[in-house]
Amino acid sequence: DFARLDHHRALRTGQAEVIFCQGKQPDHIISILKHLGEKDQNVLGTRLDPQTAELILAHFPDAIYDRLARCLLLRPLSEPTIPGKILIMTAGTADLAVAQEAWLTARYMGHDVDTLFDVGVAGIHRLLGQRELMDQAEVIIVVAGMEGALASVVGGLVEQPVIAVPTSVGYGAHFQGLAALLSMLNTCASGIGVVNIDNGFGAASLASAIVRRITRHQ
Amino acid sequence: DFARLDHHRALRTGQAEVIFCQGKQPDHIISILKHLGEKDQNVLGTRLDPQTAELILAHFPDAIYDRLARCLLLRPLSEPTIPGKILIMTAGTADLAVAQEAWLTARYMGHDVDTLFDVGVAGIHRLLGQRELMDQAEVIIVVAGMEGALASVVGGLVEQPVIAVPTSVGYGAHFQGLAALLSMLNTCASGIGVVNIDNGFGAASLASAIVRRITRHQ
Amino acid sequence: DFARLDHHRALRTGQAEVIFCQGKQPDHIISILKHLGEKDQNVLGTRLDPQTAELILAHFPDAIYDRLARCLLLRPLSEPTIPGKILIMTAGTADLAVAQEAWLTARYMGHDVDTLFDVGVAGIHRLLGQRELMDQAEVIIVVAGMEGALASVVGGLVEQPVIAVPTSVGYGAHFQGLAALLSMLNTCASGIGVVNIDNGFGAASLASAIVRRITRHQ
Amino acid sequence: DFARLDHHRALRTGQAEVIFCQGKQPDHIISILKHLGEKDQNVLGTRLDPQTAELILAHFPDAIYDRLARCLLLRPLSEPTIPGKILIMTAGTADLAVAQEAWLTARYMGHDVDTLFDVGVAGIHRLLGQRELMDQAEVIIVVAGMEGALASVVGGLVEQPVIAVPTSVGYGAHFQGLAALLSMLNTCASGIGVVNIDNGFGAASLASAIVRRITRHQ
Amino acid sequence: DFARLDHHRALRTGQAEVIFCQGKQPDHIISILKHLGEKDQNVLGTRLDPQTAELILAHFPDAIYDRLARCLLLRPLSEPTIPGKILIMTAGTADLAVAQEAWLTARYMGHDVDTLFDVGVAGIHRLLGQRELMDQAEVIIVVAGMEGALASVVGGLVEQPVIAVPTSVGYGAHFQGLAALLSMLNTCASGIGVVNIDNGFGAASLASAIVRRITRHQ
Amino acid sequence: DFARLDHHRALRTGQAEVIFCQGKQPDHIISILKHLGEKDQNVLGTRLDPQTAELILAHFPDAIYDRLARCLLLRPLSEPTIPGKILIMTAGTADLAVAQEAWLTARYMGHDVDTLFDVGVAGIHRLLGQRELMDQAEVIIVVAGMEGALASVVGGLVEQPVIAVPTSVGYGAHFQGLAALLSMLNTCASGIGVVNIDNGFGAASLASAIVRRITRHQ
Amino acid sequence: DFARLDHHRALRTGQAEVIFCQGKQPDHIISILKHLGEKDQNVLGTRLDPQTAELILAHFPDAIYDRLARCLLLRPLSEPTIPGKILIMTAGTADLAVAQEAWLTARYMGHDVDTLFDVGVAGIHRLLGQRELMDQAEVIIVVAGMEGALASVVGGLVEQPVIAVPTSVGYGAHFQGLAALLSMLNTCASGIGVVNIDNGFGAASLASAIVRRITRHQ
Amino acid sequence: DFARLDHHRALRTGQAEVIFCQGKQPDHIISILKHLGEKDQNVLGTRLDPQTAELILAHFPDAIYDRLARCLLLRPLSEPTIPGKILIMTAGTADLAVAQEAWLTARYMGHDVDTLFDVGVAGIHRLLGQRELMDQAEVIIVVAGMEGALASVVGGLVEQPVIAVPTSVGYGAHFQGLAALLSMLNTCASGIGVVNIDNGFGAASLASAIVRRITRHQ
Ligand SMILES: Nc1ncnc2c1ncn2[C@@H]1O[C@H](COP(=O)(O)O)[C@@H](O)[C@H]1O
Ligand SMILES: Nc1ncnc2c1ncn2[C@@H]1O[C@H](COP(=O)(O)O)[C@@H](O)[C@H]1O
Ligand SMILES: Nc1ncnc2c1ncn2[C@@H]1O[C@H](COP(=O)(O)O)[C@@H](O)[C@H]1O
Ligand SMILES: Nc1ncnc2c1ncn2[C@@H]1O[C@H](COP(=O)(O)O)[C@@H](O)[C@H]1O
Ligand SMILES: [Mg+2]
Ligand SMILES: [Mg+2]
Ligand SMILES: [Mg+2]
Ligand SMILES: [Mg+2]
Ligand SMILES: [Mg+2]
Ligand SMILES: [Mg+2]
Ligand SMILES: [Mg+2]
Ligand SMILES: [Mg+2]
Repeated sequence: DFARLDHHRALRTGQAEVIFCQGKQPDHIISILKHLGEKDQNVLGTRLDPQTAELILAHFPDAIYDRLARCLLLRPLSEPTIPGKILIMTAGTADLAVAQEAWLTARYMGHDVDTLFDVGVAGIHRLLGQRELMDQAEVIIVVAGMEGALASVVGGLVEQPVIAVPTSVGYGAHFQGLAALLSMLNTCASGIGVVNIDNGFGAASLASAIVRRITRHQ
Repeated sequence: DFARLDHHRALRTGQAEVIFCQGKQPDHIISILKHLGEKDQNVLGTRLDPQTAELILAHFPDAIYDRLARCLLLRPLSEPTIPGKILIMTAGTADLAVAQEAWLTARYMGHDVDTLFDVGVAGIHRLLGQRELMDQAEVIIVVAGMEGALASVVGGLVEQPVIAVPTSVGYGAHFQGLAALLSMLNTCASGIGVVNIDNGFGAASLASAIVRRITRHQ
Repeated sequence: DFARLDHHRALRTGQAEVIFCQGKQPDHIISILKHLGEKDQNVLGTRLDPQTAELILAHFPDAIYDRLARCLLLRPLSEPTIPGKILIMTAGTADLAVAQEAWLTARYMGHDVDTLFDVGVAGIHRLLGQRELMDQAEVIIVVAGMEGALASVVGGLVEQPVIAVPTSVGYGAHFQGLAALLSMLNTCASGIGVVNIDNGFGAASLASAIVRRITRHQ
Repeated sequence: DFARLDHHRALRTGQAEVIFCQGKQPDHIISILKHLGEKDQNVLGTRLDPQTAELILAHFPDAIYDRLARCLLLRPLSEPTIPGKILIMTAGTADLAVAQEAWLTARYMGHDVDTLFDVGVAGIHRLLGQRELMDQAEVIIVVAGMEGALASVVGGLVEQPVIAVPTSVGYGAHFQGLAALLSMLNTCASGIGVVNIDNGFGAASLASAIVRRITRHQ
Repeated sequence: DFARLDHHRALRTGQAEVIFCQGKQPDHIISILKHLGEKDQNVLGTRLDPQTAELILAHFPDAIYDRLARCLLLRPLSEPTIPGKILIMTAGTADLAVAQEAWLTARYMGHDVDTLFDVGVAGIHRLLGQRELMDQAEVIIVVAGMEGALASVVGGLVEQPVIAVPTSVGYGAHFQGLAALLSMLNTCASGIGVVNIDNGFGAASLASAIVRRITRHQ
Repeated sequence: DFARLDHHRALRTGQAEVIFCQGKQPDHIISILKHLGEKDQNVLGTRLDPQTAELILAHFPDAIYDRLARCLLLRPLSEPTIPGKILIMTAGTADLAVAQEAWLTARYMGHDVDTLFDVGVAGIHRLLGQRELMDQAEVIIVVAGMEGALASVVGGLVEQPVIAVPTSVGYGAHFQGLAALLSMLNTCASGIGVVNIDNGFGAASLASAIVRRITRHQ
Repeated sequence: DFARLDHHRALRTGQAEVIFCQGKQPDHIISILKHLGEKDQNVLGTRLDPQTAELILAHFPDAIYDRLARCLLLRPLSEPTIPGKILIMTAGTADLAVAQEAWLTARYMGHDVDTLFDVGVAGIHRLLGQRELMDQAEVIIVVAGMEGALASVVGGLVEQPVIAVPTSVGYGAHFQGLAALLSMLNTCASGIGVVNIDNGFGAASLASAIVRRITRHQ
Repeated sequence: DFARLDHHRALRTGQAEVIFCQGKQPDHIISILKHLGEKDQNVLGTRLDPQTAELILAHFPDAIYDRLARCLLLRPLSEPTIPGKILIMTAGTADLAVAQEAWLTARYMGHDVDTLFDVGVAGIHRLLGQRELMDQAEVIIVVAGMEGALASVVGGLVEQPVIAVPTSVGYGAHFQGLAALLSMLNTCASGIGVVNIDNGFGAASLASAIVRRITRHQ
């Protein structure tokens, strides 16, 4: 009775259950996974450290742990089922971990995902040469730490909704992602929504809500 | 040559031109308005104080100034042309000014907008009784200052994308909207994107980008 | 002579002695415990890390260490002696550690405690279905990290005093509990008092002061 | 329809309606007051500036505006009806405005209130000489800006619940009340709950919830 | 004797005297100007409000006050005498005031200055079309408030030293220029130095030191 | 009974009474002044704005208001009575107001005060040329806003105790004196104590306590 | 040549050399100690972690490492040589480490030191019963983390200069000592100077400067 | 495809490629180094921890790892090729690590570098005695943590451009370099540009851009 599972949320919000593992005891996570996994559905666990992951994997032979994203899946990902592409971009290679959490979440939720990495604004031509990839997406997720600016530049180039994810990658006056967060919130380009620092999961959830809305009307 | 108008942005991003008036000289604003207004299109000016508005209204007989939203329109609003409702909710009556900026922007961009005011979480039944209005919207904008919590509650109830606008309404440890901003960024409910404090314009722009994307597929 | 025990505080404030162990040397803690334990009374130590706890347990065969709450008791808890229930609620399962510190403190002070875990506002129906439990309490303690909003929602539902405990559970723009703290301080619901981030002990002390006041008049 | 009055809150939470006037249009306030005042009940409006107050007083001949507290009452206060004293203390004379808001709110809610002003810790004997007044109260509200320390000192002297209200009175590194807020949250004395900076209303509401709870059992 | 003029600084640092007027009494400023002006040299006063400027202009018939820059010059500017262009860019029209302080300071120090306004990154093509102007400069000053990102983009395009000036133009989570400052300090593009928020004077001084160093070697 | 005058403080702490006027009602100040002035002693009021000062001066024909320091004295200053010089230094002319509050307070308390203004570290020779003045003082007060560095430099030059007063003079990343405060607290030079931002009164009080201590032993 | 020893500082400021070890390489520290120790004088090293201390002790047979204070002395302390007592007080037992750094520094500088521990304001009588100890001191150092309030209370009781040292002991909204720092800077009691968080060394240095000044006049 | 190398940047900005290693996977770094190293050019990697460095060194026999600077070079440094000296100064010996990163970067970019360590302002004569070294430099880099003041003092002494690097060395109210950063941004001395906290690399890059500009004109 430490966890009051919200089985109705899927019905209410149309979203599959995702477990936030940070701060939970290993045996709590295992019992939640067992409970949810019974219905033959896949389950995603986020913010899971490698040590705890190892303890958990011992109980679920089919489960997969992604070290970069620090995420666990009870079963392998299936093919995308929802039409409409989500594009995930990063400014630097050091933002990859957060991008990977977003990628896994979006794929887990049934979406088709494209990626475009290391296109920071300090070398703007790398971005401008990738117009086509942007045009093919329904929604664009921009993940950036030291170059929060990337979200503004993208927002000024495209008509699609843009979801900006500040990352904690940086140092000094970066203040664990605060600099990127503020930079993204203040952008002059419109059509941009921001999620919490390092919240790849949240960005993918919002992207999913948008794409599912589009699909529903097709 | 103080303003380098971005005439292509409408083409690139599909969004009508909106002038950010704060910090601009009155005559600059007038000359931009004249220039843009020539093409017989309507123009929206945001963050315009009443004193400057008065100076400007003297030059444009058909222009309208909305004191609550602190916005100016060169011509009256036309009827909505884009299908798909946007719902704007506020937690308190003191959040109305920001909601009104969002309303004007969305209507100016051609959208159909519903409103639901004063449904703060301290009286949660007021919100729960309005399920139908939420169900009819394609996107929901939640405007809240002292009760940033409203965004989480709404995000946990609906499947639509939710855009959260923290407002600077409050006092003490509210720190000009910082408390609401942080509260909205940290919510556990998924499918929520946050814009800058008091940025009704930005929320409507993002809502518009989402709704136009949906419409495009119809 | 490093510790000037305040033997009169129990008389003055009606509260049993509790040792704040963080930052104290193990042998200091042991000698304080010995001194206080002599009078055959139970003693509670809070914010005690597992390594130090082990050193201490070696000297006190009857002592119990609670890993989740990071608290030590010199002797087992006795049955509640003071009438009037305290209800402890948490928003997420990751807030359990702080709730447990509150639970132990309240029980140690002689109170009867109910619990209600994982009722975050992102799934508001989980909370609304627990009306009865709330009605039976004299005071309600709300423990929440990522969803500080829970305190407002509860505060708007009940007539009892509510004590809000922000927790440091979260990440990114959570800033080690600051987001939850600010959110709780700014709530529109009235009848809410806030204690320090992660201060389960303080919440239980305040709840105890209130309940003992009620009892005194019975 | 700008205000969704929460008529049930009185039933749910046992508290009389209080209007937060800051940020509301004068005519909105007038129409809310008219609506609520019809039922022959008194109404309290807080955070009302003198200019707006004047506009409002013109419509309500019996209303009273308290300049110090910046509060308005539709009708004069009646005699206290609920047994159990609330004591309001201030550290400096400059904290009087916030104390007065608390006083008015508590009296409006039917309580009997004692006051003790200018007993800052820089002259601790002024406080120690007032033991009796403290002993007679069921709850103590401590209002302090430059001397947030007062809350700790009082909390260590009494067994009653203490409600601490930081004020924005101060300068420099006071940061509009942040220094007092942090000081109060970190106190070692137990049995203290903190409300928002300058929130005299909130302190009185919590005191009222506690005293009504005590009364209910008598 | 309230001001200890640093006559040697010009010798030591090669820079003309500039008076920081904010917070100085009008008669103090007048007497400093008189003293410095005697040697037939021009003097620049920065951060001077219009009211004080008016009082001062009454004593100096040849002086000029620039309302936008809030600066005063004792005599008209002479033609540039030092070879090597400084380019001043702004992201938005609202950043003009700070750019103008930089322009005046650079011109006052004898430099040749080009300008390029309103080339924010939300419309990146406006910037890319101005390559030639950038190529002609020895140093580039980038002034930006809501789009601190501009400094990174420029820094990644050019080989010249770039001086970034964050401005306080913005709102909400802009925190009076903090967002732009942090964004500029965290940029990945190298070859960028940052000065204080709104410090157009400081940017021009640094540009001047660099250009004079280049000139010295010619 | 709004003010609980602390008549014993003079006895306890050896300090004359000083009234902190900010946030006090004019008539409160007048009645306190009347009360204290009766005993034929002089009284100092600090942080008094010019408007309120005018109201007060009408009641006290011998009182003097110092606009720069924003202080009021009930009677003219008498000659210094306590041996031992206090030296007050400022970094910029804009720090004069705070220095003046310190000067008045020190003189009011009976001390002999030297001053040395505008010796900021950006022109370090101005400071080094004033060695003699420093050598003659028992205590040195350093007042600085934009150049908090001055306190370190002085602290490294002298053997006397140094009292550092950060001022709110500055802009941008000065954050109302925070930059100067932090700079002063972090200095490597030893023998420096810091008081609140703009607290000229506090600096003089500490200087006075030190000098009286020295005198007492003579 | 990595360290430019300031041999003249002792002459200039009258203070013995103290090495700040944090961030220095072990061999650097060893060579500085060797160099300074040659002149047969004692040397104090502060902020030295136990691992590095062990490496260093191997080279200096007479050196002593104090684990609590994290300080090293090249030779044992000699008896106090300067008349005039310094009293060091702490609010909690957890503030002992910082107090110990102050104690060692003061003793190393030749002073006579009294101590009074664990007299936090939550139990004010513990403090009031120690009047005599306070009266015997020339200067009082108050070390406090969770109860920054202690400095105000002491400042209001005594006529001696008070030096306040905020400590980083605490949690949650304590923000590593910021709460205590702000609380101490804002106190209304006068005659208090504040040093950096955890800076026991700095407090002792200032106390020493004051006491030596007093002595010099005897 | 995780890294989109910006081969043109060298052409565009004239700067050699430098790899920011923090947050990158070891094998990513190895493959980037292999790719860049093929062209027989040297490569610099910054912010590389010792553990990862060891893994990498195993693949590159000629590579060198500098533990102090936490930097790796693929091949030994060659002799300086660009005329014009860069002087790197530090305030304390604990700022050496950051100075070393700047030194390595400048040398790697082909510059001639002088150094001057441990000349903090608390002993200002150490600095004043080194005038000649300053005079010989084209640009001066000032690295300082606890004594951010050093940048102002140097800026007021020389005519060369000064680049200030705040370091995270310090404690308490230093806030990981924030105090030094703010101090440097607020200096009154002109001709100073600031880079991110601990960003030795960025300082050297800017110095290089300036020196190459000077050289180009020779
Ligand atoms: N990485 C994440 N960041 C933020 N929220 C998350 C994350 N992963 C899951 N969640 C949310 O947390 C909810 C579950 O929280 P819990 O009940 O504590 O397991 C999920 O339904 C999501 O809404
Ligand atoms: N707008 C400005 N911002 C920062 N520093 C300035 C500004 N204007 C002038 N200064 C500096 O302040 C010095 C003069 O300060 P003061 O002696 O107070 O007039 C000048 O020599 C400049 O170095
Ligand atoms: N400018 C000032 N800043 C801080 N404290 C002050 C100031 N002026 C007076 N005080 C203190 O405030 C006390 C009086 O406070 P009050 O009782 O509110 O008038 C005096 O005894 C001083 O200790
Ligand atoms: N714990 C400490 N905190 C702050 N400053 C210190 C400390 N210990 C020594 N110092 C100062 O640092 C100087 C030595 O710095 P350094 O040259 O880096 O060894 C000493 O002379 C003291 O002024
Ligand atoms: Mg890259
Ligand atoms: Mg309402
Ligand atoms: Mg949950
Ligand atoms: Mg008082
Ligand atoms: Mg523009
Ligand atoms: Mg000056
Ligand atoms: Mg204790
Ligand atoms: Mg040194």
